[in-house]
Amino acid sequence: MNRQELFEQIKKKKSFLCVGLDSDINKIPKHLMNHEDPVFAFNKEIIDATLPYTIAYKPNIAFYESRGAEGWNSLEKTINYLNEKAPEVFTIADAKRGDIGNTSKMYAQAFFENMEFDAITVAPYMGEDSVSPFLEYKSKWVILLALTSNKGASDFQLYRRDVGEALNRLGIRSVLPKRLFERVLLRSQQWGYVENMMYVIGATKSEYFIKVRQHIPYHFLLVPGIGAQGGSLEEVAKYGMTDQCGLIVNSSRGIIFASQETDFAQVAGEKANEVQQQMEVLLKERGLI
Amino acid sequence: MNRQELFEQIKKKKSFLCVGLDSDINKIPKHLMNHEDPVFAFNKEIIDATLPYTIAYKPNIAFYESRGAEGWNSLEKTINYLNEKAPEVFTIADAKRGDIGNTSKMYAQAFFENMEFDAITVAPYMGEDSVSPFLEYKSKWVILLALTSNKGASDFQLYRRDVGEALNRLGIRSVLPKRLFERVLLRSQQWGYVENMMYVIGATKSEYFIKVRQHIPYHFLLVPGIGAQGGSLEEVAKYGMTDQCGLIVNSSRGIIFASQETDFAQVAGEKANEVQQQMEVLLKERGLI
Repeated sequence: MNRQELFEQIKKKKSFLCVGLDSDINKIPKHLMNHEDPVFAFNKEIIDATLPYTIAYKPNIAFYESRGAEGWNSLEKTINYLNEKAPEVFTIADAKRGDIGNTSKMYAQAFFENMEFDAITVAPYMGEDSVSPFLEYKSKWVILLALTSNKGASDFQLYRRDVGEALNRLGIRSVLPKRLFERVLLRSQQWGYVENMMYVIGATKSEYFIKVRQHIPYHFLLVPGIGAQGGSLEEVAKYGMTDQCGLIVNSSRGIIFASQETDFAQVAGEKANEVQQQMEVLLKERGLI
Repeated sequence: MNRQELFEQIKKKKSFLCVGLDSDINKIPKHLMNHEDPVFAFNKEIIDATLPYTIAYKPNIAFYESRGAEGWNSLEKTINYLNEKAPEVFTIADAKRGDIGNTSKMYAQAFFENMEFDAITVAPYMGEDSVSPFLEYKSKWVILLALTSNKGASDFQLYRRDVGEALNRLGIRSVLPKRLFERVLLRSQQWGYVENMMYVIGATKSEYFIKVRQHIPYHFLLVPGIGAQGGSLEEVAKYGMTDQCGLIVNSSRGIIFASQETDFAQVAGEKANEVQQQMEVLLKERGLI
Protein backbone atom coordinates (compact mmCIF):
# COMPACT_ATOMS: atom_id res chain seq x y z
CA MET A 1 0.00 0.00 0.00
CA ASN A 2 1.34 3.47 -0.81
CA ARG A 3 0.95 6.70 1.11
CA GLN A 4 -1.77 8.11 -1.13
CA GLU A 5 -3.88 4.96 -0.75
CA LEU A 6 -3.48 5.14 3.00
CA PHE A 7 -4.59 8.77 3.03
CA GLU A 8 -7.59 7.98 0.81
CA GLN A 9 -8.69 5.33 3.27
CA ILE A 10 -8.31 7.77 6.18
CA LYS A 11 -10.56 10.25 4.38
CA LYS A 12 -13.09 7.59 3.44
CA LYS A 13 -13.40 6.12 6.93
CA LYS A 14 -12.88 9.50 8.65
CA SER A 15 -10.52 7.72 10.96
CA PHE A 16 -6.83 7.17 11.60
CA LEU A 17 -7.37 4.41 14.12
CA CYS A 18 -5.27 1.27 14.29
CA VAL A 19 -6.59 -1.60 16.40
CA GLY A 20 -3.83 -3.50 18.17
CA LEU A 21 -4.47 -7.23 18.16
CA ASP A 22 -2.61 -7.95 21.42
CA SER A 23 -4.75 -11.05 21.67
CA ASP A 24 -3.54 -12.62 24.91
CA ILE A 25 -5.12 -16.06 25.15
CA ASN A 26 -5.44 -15.59 28.92
CA LYS A 27 -7.60 -12.51 28.48
CA ILE A 28 -10.01 -13.48 25.71
CA PRO A 29 -13.60 -14.33 26.72
CA LYS A 30 -13.94 -17.79 28.19
CA HIS A 31 -16.72 -18.93 25.85
CA LEU A 32 -14.29 -18.76 22.93
CA MET A 33 -12.09 -21.46 24.42
CA ASN A 34 -14.29 -24.12 22.83
CA HIS A 35 -13.19 -23.02 19.37
CA GLU A 36 -10.48 -24.97 17.60
CA ASP A 37 -8.41 -21.77 17.46
CA PRO A 38 -9.75 -19.42 20.15
CA VAL A 39 -7.36 -16.56 19.36
CA PHE A 40 -8.27 -16.53 15.67
CA ALA A 41 -11.98 -16.75 16.56
CA PHE A 42 -11.46 -13.73 18.83
CA ASN A 43 -9.55 -11.75 16.20
CA LYS A 44 -12.12 -12.51 13.52
CA GLU A 45 -14.98 -11.16 15.61
CA ILE A 46 -12.96 -8.12 16.69
CA ILE A 47 -12.06 -7.35 13.06
CA ASP A 48 -15.64 -7.75 11.84
CA ALA A 49 -16.94 -5.41 14.55
CA THR A 50 -14.27 -2.70 14.28
CA LEU A 51 -13.61 -2.65 10.53
CA PRO A 52 -15.96 0.28 9.73
CA TYR A 53 -13.98 2.53 12.10
CA THR A 54 -10.45 1.29 11.56
CA ILE A 55 -7.81 1.87 8.89
CA ALA A 56 -5.15 -0.47 10.26
CA TYR A 57 -4.62 -3.58 12.38
CA LYS A 58 -1.49 -4.34 14.32
CA PRO A 59 -1.00 -7.83 15.77
CA ASN A 60 1.66 -7.74 18.46
CA ILE A 61 3.76 -10.75 17.52
CA ALA A 62 4.75 -11.60 21.13
CA PHE A 63 1.21 -12.68 21.95
CA TYR A 64 1.33 -15.24 19.13
CA GLU A 65 4.95 -16.32 19.43
CA SER A 66 4.49 -17.06 23.14
CA ARG A 67 2.19 -19.91 22.09
CA GLY A 68 4.69 -21.53 19.74
CA ALA A 69 3.63 -23.17 16.48
CA GLU A 70 -0.02 -22.95 17.51
CA GLY A 71 0.21 -19.20 18.04
CA TRP A 72 1.98 -18.83 14.74
CA ASN A 73 -0.97 -20.53 13.06
CA SER A 74 -3.38 -18.07 14.71
CA LEU A 75 -1.27 -15.21 13.37
CA GLU A 76 -1.17 -16.61 9.83
CA LYS A 77 -4.93 -17.12 9.83
CA THR A 78 -5.44 -13.58 11.09
CA ILE A 79 -3.32 -11.89 8.42
CA ASN A 80 -4.89 -14.06 5.71
CA TYR A 81 -8.35 -13.15 6.94
CA LEU A 82 -7.45 -9.45 6.88
CA ASN A 83 -5.97 -9.64 3.39
CA GLU A 84 -9.03 -11.44 2.03
CA LYS A 85 -11.81 -9.65 3.85
CA ALA A 86 -10.34 -6.15 3.91
CA PRO A 87 -7.44 -5.76 1.46
CA GLU A 88 -7.78 -1.97 1.82
CA VAL A 89 -6.68 -1.89 5.48
CA PHE A 90 -3.08 -1.33 6.45
CA THR A 91 -1.55 -4.28 8.30
CA ILE A 92 1.36 -3.90 10.70
CA ALA A 93 3.41 -6.74 12.17
CA ASP A 94 4.42 -5.30 15.53
CA ALA A 95 7.57 -7.37 15.77
CA LYS A 96 10.24 -4.79 16.72
CA ARG A 97 12.86 -6.89 14.96
CA GLY A 98 16.40 -5.73 14.20
CA ASP A 99 19.42 -7.90 13.45
CA ILE A 100 22.43 -8.08 11.13
CA GLY A 101 21.72 -7.95 7.40
CA ASN A 102 21.35 -11.61 6.50
CA THR A 103 19.09 -12.15 9.52
CA SER A 104 16.90 -9.10 8.89
CA LYS A 105 16.46 -10.48 5.39
CA MET A 106 14.92 -13.64 6.86
CA TYR A 107 12.56 -11.57 9.03
CA ALA A 108 11.55 -9.51 5.99
CA GLN A 109 10.75 -12.72 4.16
CA ALA A 110 8.67 -13.98 7.09
CA PHE A 111 6.52 -10.88 7.44
CA PHE A 112 6.39 -9.48 3.89
CA GLU A 113 6.43 -12.61 1.70
CA ASN A 114 5.07 -15.50 3.76
CA MET A 115 2.49 -13.42 5.59
CA GLU A 116 2.05 -10.34 3.38
CA PHE A 117 1.91 -7.67 6.04
CA ASP A 118 2.11 -4.09 4.71
CA ALA A 119 4.51 -2.97 7.42
CA ILE A 120 6.75 -4.14 10.23
CA THR A 121 8.04 -2.34 13.30
CA VAL A 122 11.86 -2.38 13.48
CA ALA A 123 14.28 -1.48 16.30
CA PRO A 124 17.04 0.92 15.18
CA TYR A 125 19.80 -0.05 17.63
CA MET A 126 21.85 -2.07 15.11
CA GLY A 127 21.79 0.63 12.44
CA GLU A 128 21.40 0.79 8.68
CA ASP A 129 22.15 -2.77 7.59
CA SER A 130 19.62 -4.09 10.11
CA VAL A 131 16.89 -1.94 8.56
CA SER A 132 17.66 -1.80 4.84
CA PRO A 133 16.63 -5.41 3.96
CA PHE A 134 13.06 -4.45 4.89
CA LEU A 135 13.22 -1.41 2.59
CA GLU A 136 13.88 -3.47 -0.50
CA TYR A 137 10.24 -4.51 -0.80
CA LYS A 138 8.08 -2.33 -3.04
CA SER A 139 4.97 -0.85 -1.37
CA LYS A 140 6.04 -2.22 2.02
CA TRP A 141 6.91 -0.10 5.03
CA VAL A 142 9.42 -0.01 7.85
CA ILE A 143 8.07 1.59 11.02
CA LEU A 144 11.17 2.46 13.00
CA LEU A 145 11.08 2.77 16.79
CA ALA A 146 12.04 6.32 17.63
CA LEU A 147 10.36 7.52 20.84
CA THR A 148 8.34 4.77 22.49
CA SER A 149 5.47 5.19 24.94
CA ASN A 150 6.98 3.31 27.86
CA LYS A 151 8.84 4.55 30.92
CA GLY A 152 12.13 3.02 29.77
CA ALA A 153 12.18 5.43 26.81
CA SER A 154 14.04 7.81 29.10
CA ASP A 155 16.93 5.37 29.59
CA PHE A 156 18.39 5.80 26.11
CA GLN A 157 15.98 7.42 23.64
CA LEU A 158 15.63 10.65 25.60
CA TYR A 159 19.05 10.60 27.10
CA ARG A 160 21.70 13.13 26.37
CA ARG A 161 24.59 13.75 28.57
CA ASP A 162 24.37 16.90 30.58
CA VAL A 163 27.17 18.40 28.59
CA GLY A 164 24.58 20.77 27.15
CA GLU A 165 24.24 22.57 30.44
CA ALA A 166 27.95 22.72 30.94
CA LEU A 167 28.24 24.36 27.55
CA ASN A 168 25.36 26.70 28.19
CA ARG A 169 27.22 27.97 31.21
CA LEU A 170 30.07 28.76 28.87
CA GLY A 171 27.67 30.58 26.58
CA ILE A 172 27.93 27.93 23.84
CA ARG A 173 24.42 27.00 22.79
CA SER A 174 24.93 25.65 19.32
CA VAL A 175 26.51 22.32 20.20
CA LEU A 176 23.75 21.04 22.50
CA PRO A 177 23.84 17.31 21.77
CA LYS A 178 20.80 15.74 20.21
CA ARG A 179 18.84 13.08 22.02
CA LEU A 180 19.10 9.56 20.62
CA PHE A 181 15.58 9.52 19.16
CA GLU A 182 16.43 12.67 17.19
CA ARG A 183 19.57 11.04 15.88
CA VAL A 184 17.44 8.05 14.82
CA LEU A 185 15.01 10.34 12.97
CA LEU A 186 17.80 12.21 11.21
CA ARG A 187 20.16 9.37 10.40
CA SER A 188 17.45 7.07 9.05
CA GLN A 189 16.49 9.71 6.45
CA GLN A 190 19.46 8.36 4.52
CA TRP A 191 18.00 4.86 4.39
CA GLY A 192 14.40 5.32 3.35
CA TYR A 193 11.95 8.10 2.55
CA VAL A 194 8.37 9.21 3.16
CA GLU A 195 6.99 6.45 0.94
CA ASN A 196 8.55 3.52 2.81
CA MET A 197 9.33 4.67 6.35
CA MET A 198 7.22 5.64 9.31
CA TYR A 199 8.22 6.16 12.95
CA VAL A 200 6.86 5.03 16.29
CA ILE A 201 6.32 8.09 18.49
CA GLY A 202 4.45 7.43 21.74
CA ALA A 203 1.38 9.50 22.60
CA THR A 204 2.67 9.72 26.16
CA LYS A 205 5.49 11.93 24.93
CA SER A 206 3.36 14.67 23.36
CA GLU A 207 5.80 17.38 24.50
CA TYR A 208 8.24 16.03 21.92
CA PHE A 209 5.87 16.06 18.93
CA ILE A 210 6.93 19.60 17.94
CA LYS A 211 10.56 18.51 17.88
CA VAL A 212 9.62 15.35 15.93
CA ARG A 213 7.78 17.38 13.30
CA GLN A 214 10.76 19.74 12.97
CA HIS A 215 12.89 16.76 11.94
CA ILE A 216 10.29 14.82 9.92
CA PRO A 217 7.49 17.13 8.79
CA TYR A 218 5.90 14.71 6.31
CA HIS A 219 6.36 11.14 7.53
CA PHE A 220 3.53 9.08 8.92
CA LEU A 221 3.84 8.33 12.63
CA LEU A 222 2.52 5.23 14.35
CA VAL A 223 1.37 6.45 17.74
CA PRO A 224 0.81 4.01 20.60
CA GLY A 225 -0.04 5.06 24.13
CA ILE A 226 -3.60 6.38 23.76
CA GLY A 227 -6.05 4.82 26.21
CA ALA A 228 -4.59 2.41 28.77
CA GLN A 229 -1.23 4.21 28.72
CA GLY A 230 -2.73 7.69 29.18
CA GLY A 231 -1.76 9.68 26.05
CA SER A 232 -4.05 12.42 24.68
CA LEU A 233 -5.48 12.12 21.17
CA GLU A 234 -6.08 15.89 20.96
CA GLU A 235 -2.47 16.70 21.85
CA VAL A 236 -1.17 14.18 19.32
CA ALA A 237 -3.37 15.62 16.55
CA LYS A 238 -2.54 19.21 17.49
CA TYR A 239 1.22 18.76 17.18
CA GLY A 240 1.53 15.72 14.94
CA MET A 241 -1.07 15.98 12.17
CA THR A 242 0.04 16.85 8.64
CA ASP A 243 -1.78 17.76 5.43
CA GLN A 244 -2.01 14.04 4.67
CA CYS A 245 -2.98 13.26 8.27
CA GLY A 246 0.42 11.69 8.93
CA LEU A 247 -0.88 9.80 11.95
CA ILE A 248 -1.91 6.22 12.66
CA VAL A 249 -3.03 6.10 16.27
CA ASN A 250 -3.12 2.70 17.91
CA SER A 251 -5.38 1.43 20.65
CA SER A 252 -5.15 -2.16 21.85
CA ARG A 253 -6.45 -3.09 25.30
CA GLY A 254 -8.86 -0.15 25.44
CA ILE A 255 -10.76 -1.64 22.50
CA ILE A 256 -10.24 -5.38 22.29
CA PHE A 257 -10.60 -6.05 26.02
CA ALA A 258 -13.23 -3.36 26.75
CA SER A 259 -15.55 -6.26 27.55
CA GLN A 260 -14.42 -9.80 28.30
CA GLU A 261 -17.95 -11.22 28.16
CA THR A 262 -19.94 -12.62 25.24
CA ASP A 263 -20.61 -9.06 24.03
CA PHE A 264 -16.88 -8.37 23.60
CA ALA A 265 -17.05 -7.78 19.85
CA GLN A 266 -20.01 -5.44 20.06
CA VAL A 267 -18.37 -3.40 22.83
CA ALA A 268 -15.08 -3.32 20.89
CA GLY A 269 -17.01 -1.96 17.90
CA GLU A 270 -18.61 0.72 20.08
CA LYS A 271 -15.25 1.73 21.55
CA ALA A 272 -13.69 1.91 18.08
CA ASN A 273 -16.64 3.99 16.89
CA GLU A 274 -16.14 6.42 19.81
CA VAL A 275 -12.49 6.93 18.93
CA GLN A 276 -13.38 7.25 15.23
CA GLN A 277 -15.84 10.03 16.04
CA GLN A 278 -13.18 11.95 17.96
CA MET A 279 -10.85 11.48 15.02
CA GLU A 280 -13.51 12.71 12.57
CA VAL A 281 -13.74 15.97 14.52
CA LEU A 282 -9.97 16.38 14.45
CA LEU A 283 -9.74 15.64 10.71
CA LYS A 284 -12.52 18.18 10.05
CA GLU A 285 -10.86 20.85 12.18
CA ARG A 286 -7.75 20.41 10.10
CA GLY A 287 -9.79 20.64 6.90
CA LEU A 288 -8.79 17.22 5.62
CA ILE A 289 -12.35 15.92 5.20
CA MET B 1 22.47 -22.35 34.72
CA ASN B 2 24.58 -20.12 36.97
CA ARG B 3 27.93 -18.50 36.29
CA GLN B 4 29.96 -21.02 38.22
CA GLU B 5 28.41 -23.94 36.32
CA LEU B 6 29.17 -22.19 33.06
CA PHE B 7 32.80 -21.68 34.07
CA GLU B 8 33.10 -25.33 35.19
CA GLN B 9 31.94 -26.43 31.77
CA ILE B 10 34.42 -24.12 30.06
CA LYS B 11 37.26 -25.67 32.08
CA LYS B 12 36.04 -29.20 31.46
CA LYS B 13 35.68 -28.82 27.69
CA LYS B 14 38.66 -26.43 27.44
CA SER B 15 36.49 -24.32 25.21
CA PHE B 16 34.36 -21.19 25.23
CA LEU B 17 32.84 -21.87 21.83
CA CYS B 18 29.19 -21.29 21.02
CA VAL B 19 27.86 -22.81 17.81
CA GLY B 20 25.28 -20.59 16.10
CA LEU B 21 22.44 -22.62 14.65
CA ASP B 22 21.61 -20.19 11.83
CA SER B 23 20.09 -23.14 10.05
CA ASP B 24 18.87 -21.61 6.81
CA ILE B 25 16.77 -24.22 5.02
CA ASN B 26 18.14 -22.99 1.68
CA LYS B 27 21.70 -23.74 2.71
CA ILE B 28 21.48 -27.13 4.39
CA PRO B 29 22.71 -30.16 2.41
CA LYS B 30 20.26 -31.33 -0.24
CA HIS B 31 20.17 -34.95 0.91
CA LEU B 32 18.48 -33.84 4.15
CA MET B 33 15.45 -32.53 2.31
CA ASN B 34 13.94 -36.02 2.33
CA HIS B 35 13.59 -35.87 6.12
CA GLU B 36 10.23 -34.98 7.62
CA ASP B 37 11.90 -32.00 9.33
CA PRO B 38 15.11 -31.25 7.41
CA VAL B 39 16.21 -28.37 9.66
CA PHE B 40 15.88 -30.43 12.82
CA ALA B 41 17.70 -33.34 11.16
CA PHE B 42 20.49 -30.89 10.26
CA ASN B 43 20.66 -29.40 13.76
CA LYS B 44 20.70 -32.83 15.39
CA GLU B 45 23.69 -33.99 13.34
CA ILE B 46 25.51 -30.67 13.88
CA ILE B 47 24.93 -30.88 17.65
CA ASP B 48 26.09 -34.51 17.85
CA ALA B 49 29.28 -33.73 15.92
CA THR B 50 30.22 -30.48 17.70
CA LEU B 51 29.14 -31.22 21.28
CA PRO B 52 32.59 -32.33 22.53
CA TYR B 53 34.03 -28.92 21.61
CA THR B 54 31.15 -26.62 22.41
CA ILE B 55 29.77 -25.11 25.61
CA ALA B 56 26.79 -23.29 24.11
CA TYR B 57 24.35 -23.34 21.19
CA LYS B 58 22.58 -20.30 19.81
CA PRO B 59 19.71 -20.77 17.37
CA ASN B 60 19.06 -17.52 15.52
CA ILE B 61 15.30 -17.27 15.76
CA ALA B 62 14.87 -15.51 12.39
CA PHE B 63 15.87 -18.65 10.51
CA TYR B 64 13.03 -20.56 12.18
CA GLU B 65 10.42 -17.82 12.30
CA SER B 66 10.80 -17.20 8.56
CA ARG B 67 9.31 -20.67 8.02
CA GLY B 68 6.21 -20.01 10.12
CA ALA B 69 4.63 -22.71 12.28
CA GLU B 70 6.83 -25.35 10.64
CA GLY B 71 10.00 -23.47 11.54
CA TRP B 72 8.74 -22.99 15.05
CA ASN B 73 8.37 -26.76 15.34
CA SER B 74 11.98 -27.24 14.21
CA LEU B 75 13.08 -24.78 16.89
CA GLU B 76 11.10 -26.51 19.63
CA LYS B 77 12.49 -29.89 18.66
CA THR B 78 16.02 -28.46 18.66
CA ILE B 79 15.84 -26.93 22.13
CA ASN B 80 14.18 -30.08 23.50
CA TYR B 81 16.91 -32.21 21.97
CA LEU B 82 19.59 -30.00 23.52
CA ASN B 83 17.96 -30.05 26.94
CA GLU B 84 17.63 -33.84 26.89
CA LYS B 85 20.91 -34.84 25.29
CA ALA B 86 23.16 -32.18 26.78
CA PRO B 87 21.56 -30.43 29.76
CA GLU B 88 25.00 -29.09 30.70
CA VAL B 89 25.32 -26.84 27.62
CA PHE B 90 24.25 -23.23 27.71
CA THR B 91 21.39 -22.46 25.31
CA ILE B 92 20.80 -19.00 23.88
CA ALA B 93 17.71 -17.88 21.98
CA ASP B 94 19.15 -15.26 19.64
CA ALA B 95 15.93 -13.32 19.36
CA LYS B 96 17.01 -9.70 19.98
CA ARG B 97 13.58 -8.94 21.41
CA GLY B 98 12.66 -5.75 23.25
CA ASP B 99 9.19 -4.33 23.81
CA ILE B 100 7.08 -2.67 26.51
CA GLY B 101 6.75 -4.55 29.80
CA ASN B 102 3.62 -6.63 29.23
CA THR B 103 4.92 -7.69 25.81
CA SER B 104 8.44 -8.55 27.01
CA LYS B 105 6.74 -10.73 29.60
CA MET B 106 5.13 -12.75 26.82
CA TYR B 107 8.49 -13.15 25.08
CA ALA B 108 10.07 -14.26 28.35
CA GLN B 109 7.36 -16.87 28.72
CA ALA B 110 7.93 -18.10 25.16
CA PHE B 111 11.67 -18.55 25.48
CA PHE B 112 12.17 -19.35 29.18
CA GLU B 113 9.04 -21.35 30.07
CA ASN B 114 7.70 -22.91 26.89
CA MET B 115 11.09 -23.63 25.41
CA GLU B 116 13.45 -23.56 28.41
CA PHE B 117 16.34 -21.67 26.91
CA ASP B 118 18.98 -20.54 29.43
CA ALA B 119 19.35 -17.11 27.87
CA ILE B 120 17.87 -14.69 25.37
CA THR B 121 19.43 -11.79 23.49
CA VAL B 122 17.57 -8.53 24.13
CA ALA B 123 17.75 -5.13 22.39
CA PRO B 124 18.20 -2.21 24.83
CA TYR B 125 16.55 0.62 22.86
CA MET B 126 13.30 0.65 24.87
CA GLY B 127 15.04 0.72 28.26
CA GLU B 128 14.57 -0.88 31.65
CA ASP B 129 10.94 -2.04 31.54
CA SER B 130 11.61 -3.81 28.23
CA VAL B 131 14.43 -5.82 29.83
CA SER B 132 13.37 -6.43 33.44
CA PRO B 133 10.64 -9.04 32.73
CA PHE B 134 13.39 -11.36 31.47
CA LEU B 135 15.39 -10.83 34.67
CA GLU B 136 12.65 -12.16 36.91
CA TYR B 137 13.51 -15.77 36.03
CA LYS B 138 15.92 -17.51 38.37
CA SER B 139 19.05 -18.98 36.71
CA LYS B 140 18.08 -17.43 33.37
CA TRP B 141 20.10 -14.78 31.57
CA VAL B 142 19.57 -11.62 29.57
CA ILE B 143 22.24 -11.02 26.96
CA LEU B 144 21.90 -7.35 26.13
CA LEU B 145 23.01 -5.97 22.77
CA ALA B 146 25.73 -3.45 23.46
CA LEU B 147 28.24 -3.26 20.60
CA THR B 148 27.26 -5.47 17.69
CA SER B 149 29.54 -6.87 15.00
CA ASN B 150 27.83 -5.31 11.98
CA LYS B 151 28.62 -2.15 10.03
CA GLY B 152 25.47 -0.39 11.24
CA ALA B 153 26.86 -0.43 14.80
CA SER B 154 28.45 2.91 13.96
CA ASP B 155 25.08 4.56 13.26
CA PHE B 156 24.00 4.74 16.91
CA GLN B 157 26.01 2.45 19.21
CA LEU B 158 29.34 4.14 18.48
CA TYR B 159 27.93 7.54 17.82
CA ARG B 160 28.63 10.53 19.94
CA ARG B 161 28.20 14.02 18.77
CA ASP B 162 31.39 15.84 18.00
CA VAL B 163 30.87 18.05 21.00
CA GLY B 164 33.85 16.28 22.56
CA GLU B 165 36.24 17.91 20.16
CA ALA B 166 34.64 21.29 20.59
CA LEU B 167 35.16 20.92 24.32
CA ASN B 168 38.70 19.68 23.96
CA ARG B 169 39.50 22.85 22.09
CA LEU B 170 38.24 24.72 25.12
CA GLY B 171 40.47 22.59 27.33
CA ILE B 172 37.53 20.76 28.94
CA ARG B 173 38.25 17.06 28.83
CA SER B 174 36.11 15.69 31.57
CA VAL B 175 32.70 16.03 29.91
CA LEU B 176 33.48 14.05 26.76
CA PRO B 177 30.13 12.38 26.10
CA LYS B 178 29.96 8.63 26.30
CA ARG B 179 29.06 6.55 23.29
CA LEU B 180 25.65 4.89 23.37
CA PHE B 181 27.03 1.38 23.95
CA GLU B 182 28.86 2.65 27.03
CA ARG B 183 25.67 4.21 28.31
CA VAL B 184 23.94 0.83 27.78
CA LEU B 185 26.67 -0.96 29.75
CA LEU B 186 26.51 1.53 32.61
CA ARG B 187 22.78 2.11 32.85
CA SER B 188 21.87 -1.58 32.70
CA GLN B 189 24.02 -2.26 35.79
CA GLN B 190 21.01 -0.96 37.70
CA TRP B 191 18.73 -3.64 36.26
CA GLY B 192 20.67 -6.88 36.61
CA TYR B 193 24.05 -8.13 37.78
CA VAL B 194 26.86 -10.49 36.87
CA GLU B 195 24.73 -13.55 37.62
CA ASN B 196 21.88 -12.73 35.22
CA MET B 197 23.24 -10.37 32.58
CA MET B 198 25.73 -10.72 29.77
CA TYR B 199 26.46 -8.39 26.85
CA VAL B 200 26.87 -8.81 23.12
CA ILE B 201 30.19 -7.28 22.08
CA GLY B 202 31.24 -7.96 18.49
CA ALA B 203 34.68 -9.43 17.78
CA THR B 204 34.98 -7.01 14.87
CA LYS B 205 35.23 -4.16 17.39
CA SER B 206 38.25 -5.42 19.33
CA GLU B 207 39.60 -1.88 19.77
CA TYR B 208 36.71 -1.27 22.16
CA PHE B 209 37.25 -4.31 24.39
CA ILE B 210 39.51 -2.35 26.77
CA LYS B 211 36.80 0.26 27.22
CA VAL B 212 34.18 -2.47 27.68
CA ARG B 213 36.23 -4.15 30.40
CA GLN B 214 36.69 -0.81 32.17
CA HIS B 215 32.92 -0.56 32.51
CA ILE B 216 32.10 -4.25 33.11
CA PRO B 217 35.19 -6.09 34.35
CA TYR B 218 33.41 -9.27 35.42
CA HIS B 219 30.40 -9.89 33.15
CA PHE B 220 30.34 -12.60 30.56
CA LEU B 221 30.36 -11.35 26.97
CA LEU B 222 28.75 -13.09 24.03
CA VAL B 223 31.06 -12.39 21.13
CA PRO B 224 29.89 -12.81 17.53
CA GLY B 225 31.94 -11.87 14.50
CA ILE B 226 34.71 -14.49 14.56
CA GLY B 227 35.13 -16.32 11.24
CA ALA B 228 32.94 -15.14 8.35
CA GLN B 229 32.81 -11.60 9.75
CA GLY B 230 36.57 -11.33 10.26
CA GLY B 231 37.10 -10.81 14.02
CA SER B 232 40.25 -12.14 15.75
CA LEU B 233 39.94 -14.71 18.54
CA GLU B 234 43.37 -13.77 19.93
CA GLU B 235 42.49 -10.08 20.19
CA VAL B 236 39.19 -10.88 21.88
CA ALA B 237 40.88 -13.13 24.44
CA LYS B 238 43.71 -10.67 25.03
CA TYR B 239 41.43 -7.78 25.96
CA GLY B 240 38.23 -9.52 26.98
CA MET B 241 39.12 -12.59 29.05
CA THR B 242 38.55 -12.56 32.81
CA ASP B 243 39.52 -14.87 35.66
CA GLN B 244 36.33 -16.85 35.00
CA CYS B 245 36.93 -16.70 31.24
CA GLY B 246 34.06 -14.21 30.81
CA LEU B 247 33.76 -15.00 27.11
CA ILE B 248 31.39 -17.04 24.98
CA VAL B 249 32.60 -16.76 21.40
CA ASN B 250 30.12 -17.62 18.69
CA SER B 251 30.74 -19.06 15.26
CA SER B 252 27.85 -19.88 12.95
CA ARG B 253 28.43 -20.14 9.19
CA GLY B 254 32.13 -20.96 9.60
CA ILE B 255 31.16 -24.20 11.34
CA ILE B 256 27.68 -25.31 10.31
CA PHE B 257 28.11 -24.58 6.60
CA ALA B 258 31.82 -25.46 6.31
CA SER B 259 30.68 -28.31 4.09
CA GLN B 260 27.30 -28.49 2.39
CA GLU B 261 27.79 -32.10 1.26
CA THR B 262 26.95 -35.39 3.00
CA ASP B 263 30.03 -34.95 5.21
CA PHE B 264 28.69 -31.66 6.64
CA ALA B 265 28.48 -32.88 10.24
CA GLN B 266 31.95 -34.40 10.24
CA VAL B 267 33.45 -31.21 8.79
CA ALA B 268 31.51 -29.08 11.28
CA GLY B 269 32.97 -31.23 14.08
CA GLU B 270 36.47 -30.75 12.70
CA LYS B 271 36.01 -26.98 12.43
CA ALA B 272 34.66 -26.80 15.99
CA ASN B 273 37.59 -28.90 17.17
CA GLU B 274 40.03 -26.48 15.48
CA VAL B 275 38.49 -23.50 17.25
CA GLN B 276 38.40 -25.41 20.54
CA GLN B 277 42.14 -26.12 20.25
CA GLN B 278 42.87 -22.42 19.76
CA MET B 279 40.70 -21.67 22.77
CA GLU B 280 42.50 -24.30 24.87
CA VAL B 281 45.80 -22.51 24.19
CA LEU B 282 44.28 -19.16 25.21
CA LEU B 283 42.77 -20.59 28.40
CA LYS B 284 46.11 -22.16 29.31
CA GLU B 285 48.02 -18.93 28.65
CA ARG B 286 45.68 -17.21 31.07
CA GLY B 287 46.19 -19.98 33.63
CA LEU B 288 42.53 -20.93 33.80
CA ILE B 289 43.08 -24.61 32.97
